[in-house]
Amino acid sequence: MKVIHESARIYGESIIGENSCILENVILGYPDRQILNVIRTKNIKIENYQCQGSNIGENALIRANTIIYCKVRIGKNFQTGHNILIRENTSIGDNVSIGTNSVIEGNTSIGNNVNIQSNVFIPINTTIEDFVFIGPNTVLTNDKYPIRKDLTLKGPVIRKGASIGAGAIILPGVEIGEGSMIAAGALVTTNVPQWKLAVGSPAKIVKLPEELKVFNRI
Amino acid sequence: MKVIHESARIYGESIIGENSCILENVILGYPDRQILNVIRTKNIKIENYQCQGSNIGENALIRANTIIYCKVRIGKNFQTGHNILIRENTSIGDNVSIGTNSVIEGNTSIGNNVNIQSNVFIPINTTIEDFVFIGPNTVLTNDKYPIRKDLTLKGPVIRKGASIGAGAIILPGVEIGEGSMIAAGALVTTNVPQWKLAVGSPAKIVKLPEELKVFNRI
Amino acid sequence: MKVIHESARIYGESIIGENSCILENVILGYPDRQILNVIRTKNIKIENYQCQGSNIGENALIRANTIIYCKVRIGKNFQTGHNILIRENTSIGDNVSIGTNSVIEGNTSIGNNVNIQSNVFIPINTTIEDFVFIGPNTVLTNDKYPIRKDLTLKGPVIRKGASIGAGAIILPGVEIGEGSMIAAGALVTTNVPQWKLAVGSPAKIVKLPEELKVFNRI
Repeated sequence: MKVIHESARIYGESIIGENSCILENVILGYPDRQILNVIRTKNIKIENYQCQGSNIGENALIRANTIIYCKVRIGKNFQTGHNILIRENTSIGDNVSIGTNSVIEGNTSIGNNVNIQSNVFIPINTTIEDFVFIGPNTVLTNDKYPIRKDLTLKGPVIRKGASIGAGAIILPGVEIGEGSMIAAGALVTTNVPQWKLAVGSPAKIVKLPEELKVFNRI
Repeated sequence: MKVIHESARIYGESIIGENSCILENVILGYPDRQILNVIRTKNIKIENYQCQGSNIGENALIRANTIIYCKVRIGKNFQTGHNILIRENTSIGDNVSIGTNSVIEGNTSIGNNVNIQSNVFIPINTTIEDFVFIGPNTVLTNDKYPIRKDLTLKGPVIRKGASIGAGAIILPGVEIGEGSMIAAGALVTTNVPQWKLAVGSPAKIVKLPEELKVFNRI
Repeated sequence: MKVIHESARIYGESIIGENSCILENVILGYPDRQILNVIRTKNIKIENYQCQGSNIGENALIRANTIIYCKVRIGKNFQTGHNILIRENTSIGDNVSIGTNSVIEGNTSIGNNVNIQSNVFIPINTTIEDFVFIGPNTVLTNDKYPIRKDLTLKGPVIRKGASIGAGAIILPGVEIGEGSMIAAGALVTTNVPQWKLAVGSPAKIVKLPEELKVFNRI
């Protein structure tokens, strides 16, 4: 059984797994820029354009006003708050939860059992492994010298089981090691080794207290 | 008289006070997780489910795309920007204004004459007393060691007349004293006594200039 | 040719340039508070109220759920992500791009070739000149002693070609000089001269490396 609210818009050949619940004004399979250009120049209705759509696994709960682009593939037990945006060429594993107003800009890989809170920004070309937690209002970046140099955009790599506190800022290409914790408000400018704590602005890397050397409870 | 836009969705037994204005695509009485589970498993249309809804006082102005959950009780003269989310079991007093994209996660108490700006995140189990101001992009938190320990989630307590600057981060359980000011960008890790100023990352508590020892003008 | 999705709402005498694409649930010409008061008290349907609307130049691409108020004038080649809010009395030049969930509060002037990323907050009375870049989750402010003093609200002035990193906080009335760069996470409390770098919380002004003394590539 599936619940798809009558106000939801399902574009292209989107696939929605069994037992899913797609709520008010959700849009799945949103056209990327290339498709929008075709739609504009050929004056095709979005509803009639045959594209790949999004692929949502079983038991998803996608709350009102969330938009998921085409070429997004999501595993089972996916849950969202409201107004989430997930752009094209993103793959998301099983048991992932994303909070209200968070933005995933595309070309990104997210593992299993990941918990992303509200108002988070995840740029193009980011990697988030399994069992990662990302606190509210955290921002990941991918452009070291914003639009001054023609660098390849390179987002952070967040390794398995890392936990990132609220309002943290992670600089481009930085790798957060397995099991590490990033304190709230930290500005992380360098790689963080596994099972360490990064704290401060800019962040210093210190010992992670023994009692916190445990897996995230996701 | 009430203005309820034809695109608004009013779920359950929501009550809307006189002289209120509920605008485009607003949803009131949104189902919490428990209700959603019933709706999913019994295949009931949301529109037909009899729940408690939200209770909005007179003279409210709720702008387009805002979502307010069931079991939310709000006083008179409530005003919102756009895309606000207010989750279940939240009580809000009179003369409260909440800015665009702010998220109130639920189980929270907000007093009278409170002004919350845009992009603010307020977690579960937060207390905000009367005459508080919270600047844009500020984030309050409730989990001290994010998902590493089974602690009770405990948000901050913001006492009467406190003023919190833009982009501040308030750690879990921290109490911001009556009349205190938090500087923009401050990372507040400890309680702030009344009528003090917290500034820096992490914040130091210093004297509040005499000229600022006045009540918020809300 | 224009594409205006059937779910978009175009209020007042809004003008939309040729070759524009206005997508799902977008609202143009949204009523400001004064108009809302008239609508409420006279019980007029928003759709029937004759106001100035918004004026959008040719070749605009306005993605789903964006809201643009009345008395907003935008040049050609405008592009938005989703859920953007632009309030009244704002003028925006040509070739401007604004990311998902960003909020522009009104009475603001934005030049040509400006790139504003996601989750950005821009308060009332801000000036942004040509070729400026503003990174994600950045917050500009306009009230030095939030609601403690009756100061005129004065937002920052961002001069031509400045680049502001992610998660920066810019204090009220601060001027960011031409060509300057603001590091990610910087808290900018004083004016920044032209072609300098501001870094830290609070920010120090240092030399901008020679290799970065180039124009933004917008």
